[in-house]
Amino acid sequence: MRKEVTLAMGNGGEESSELIEKLFFKYFKNEILSRGEDGAILDIKKEIATSSDSFTVSPIFFNGGDIGKLSICGSCNDVAMMGAKPKYLTCSFIIEEGLSLRDLEKIVRSMKKELEINGAIVVSGDTKVVPKGAVDKIFINTTAIGEVIKKGISISNLKEGLDIIVSRDIGAHGATIFAAREGIELESNLKSDCASLYPQVEALIKNDIDIRVLRDATRGGVAAVLNEWARGSNLSIKVFEEKVPVSSEVRGICELLGFEPLTLANEGTFVLALPKTQSKKALEVLKEFNENASIIGEVDSLYPKRVYLESSWGTKRFLDMPTGELLPRIC
Amino acid sequence: MRKEVTLAMGNGGEESSELIEKLFFKYFKNEILSRGEDGAILDIKKEIATSSDSFTVSPIFFNGGDIGKLSICGSCNDVAMMGAKPKYLTCSFIIEEGLSLRDLEKIVRSMKKELEINGAIVVSGDTKVVPKGAVDKIFINTTAIGEVIKKGISISNLKEGLDIIVSRDIGAHGATIFAAREGIELESNLKSDCASLYPQVEALIKNDIDIRVLRDATRGGVAAVLNEWARGSNLSIKVFEEKVPVSSEVRGICELLGFEPLTLANEGTFVLALPKTQSKKALEVLKEFNENASIIGEVDSLYPKRVYLESSWGTKRFLDMPTGELLPRIC
Repeated sequence: MRKEVTLAMGNGGEESSELIEKLFFKYFKNEILSRGEDGAILDIKKEIATSSDSFTVSPIFFNGGDIGKLSICGSCNDVAMMGAKPKYLTCSFIIEEGLSLRDLEKIVRSMKKELEINGAIVVSGDTKVVPKGAVDKIFINTTAIGEVIKKGISISNLKEGLDIIVSRDIGAHGATIFAAREGIELESNLKSDCASLYPQVEALIKNDIDIRVLRDATRGGVAAVLNEWARGSNLSIKVFEEKVPVSSEVRGICELLGFEPLTLANEGTFVLALPKTQSKKALEVLKEFNENASIIGEVDSLYPKRVYLESSWGTKRFLDMPTGELLPRIC
Repeated sequence: MRKEVTLAMGNGGEESSELIEKLFFKYFKNEILSRGEDGAILDIKKEIATSSDSFTVSPIFFNGGDIGKLSICGSCNDVAMMGAKPKYLTCSFIIEEGLSLRDLEKIVRSMKKELEINGAIVVSGDTKVVPKGAVDKIFINTTAIGEVIKKGISISNLKEGLDIIVSRDIGAHGATIFAAREGIELESNLKSDCASLYPQVEALIKNDIDIRVLRDATRGGVAAVLNEWARGSNLSIKVFEEKVPVSSEVRGICELLGFEPLTLANEGTFVLALPKTQSKKALEVLKEFNENASIIGEVDSLYPKRVYLESSWGTKRFLDMPTGELLPRIC
């Protein structure tokens, strides 16, 4: 095979078949994919959860992950956030003519690794190659289909008095991409939080944690999630400012560039609402995965549809829905 | 709202919400989508069929369709080809900053119209806006999920003696896109065959047609489908050269540019293999949709894994799997 992706590899003919068989099947092969149909027949008896995302991140390789890992985590996490186990993925590549096959293979290898963490398989795919300049390197779309293992997790469960937990320190993905793009070299260990969240969700469920609302804090960060929840419930969410876990590396980037960590994107961090009586146990479970898991706030009705930060001095300020350009191509 | 798509509309915050609510929900709104979750919970009791495709066609508006119509037909047709009724779609947009919102709305409106033809709804979506130059105008990914209504349609059913039918005259999509891109003005009615195929599949099933193998002839055209079938079955497929329906407009483009109509892409044309005793009835059903439906060949074992054309003079030549660049961004 050539060393670069060629337009012919997207022709639906001989060269397409070769790319699919020699590269994609090498990593993704399974009984369903091998049937040689355009789509896949799945036998699912339970309620299913599905979510689709396109990934356009730049740079395509970054500290802590790459566009391949991200594309599996992204859709699988959305499904995990609905209380479902990711099982099947479709995956669709749009590749710029000239991308090196070595890079493509590196990406596909990351995808395979992340699929294994989720216990999921690719059941259908699509590959388009477009001429130079029509797309920047590679975009990947994945759609995950999962089986619901815990029913009823929904924003409609948000009630006064629930605690709000974040699963780890926030903003690492946004800060990493920003630093990479701006050429900021840090002597630190700043790396994306990009990770599959199903193992944590599974652990919470196995420990009988009464998960009420769950959402990963991707584009728009924790601020976007909490604002959506406040708006959707007509309640307010109080955030204890000092309790929000932020690593020193992320805080450094934020201070340098004037960002608010709560609006930075994450790719392996979630927000959880649950009864106060459950918080201690949930934290114990989550700290097995990341010691920075923390109760950061609670639901009240003081400022309907708003999110507000309270400092240890008792001062308050609103945390708005993020607005403006933020960081394009963060995921 | 502004008149153009801005980077901020992809921020996952305020402007994203506005675009989704004012434009996408205007056309796609339904009970599942309105739940405000990142993904969708679906209650499907039957076997499901799923397929995913990314659409990068250029130009985005063409005679007979646009990228929106194409993006719904494409995935729904893949599912229909598996004997399934398209029910749910996820749909994911990658938009270049600066695309006019009027064009975007036109595209979304086409999608809605085509969804209605399939009786399907959008249950989950994603919108990315990337800076100018990172993508050419707009790419759309759709994943369709359907309920299997006729089991067992599969390439593994290909047997000696089956007839091969095409559902209409071939090559219209490829010829249309090529003519549009090359600025060839024809005084004719050349237009893409872009269409949803579920209604035809449903009619065949309702009329108890014993469909054995079914595939829409997209990239690589009828030649790619038949070659895949021949390879997958270890049999050969004879094509009666004069029986292949080609419109005079498509033939004109092919003669002008030296193309073989059998390798041109279609977006609303399928190939069907079935027992000879069923062909007449199947043709009757298909001619209700397009009078050019035709028996074009049959399965034999003369040249294992090959497809060959036979003229009325008895001369034979092989029809190979298409190779080379063909037409990038055809779909």
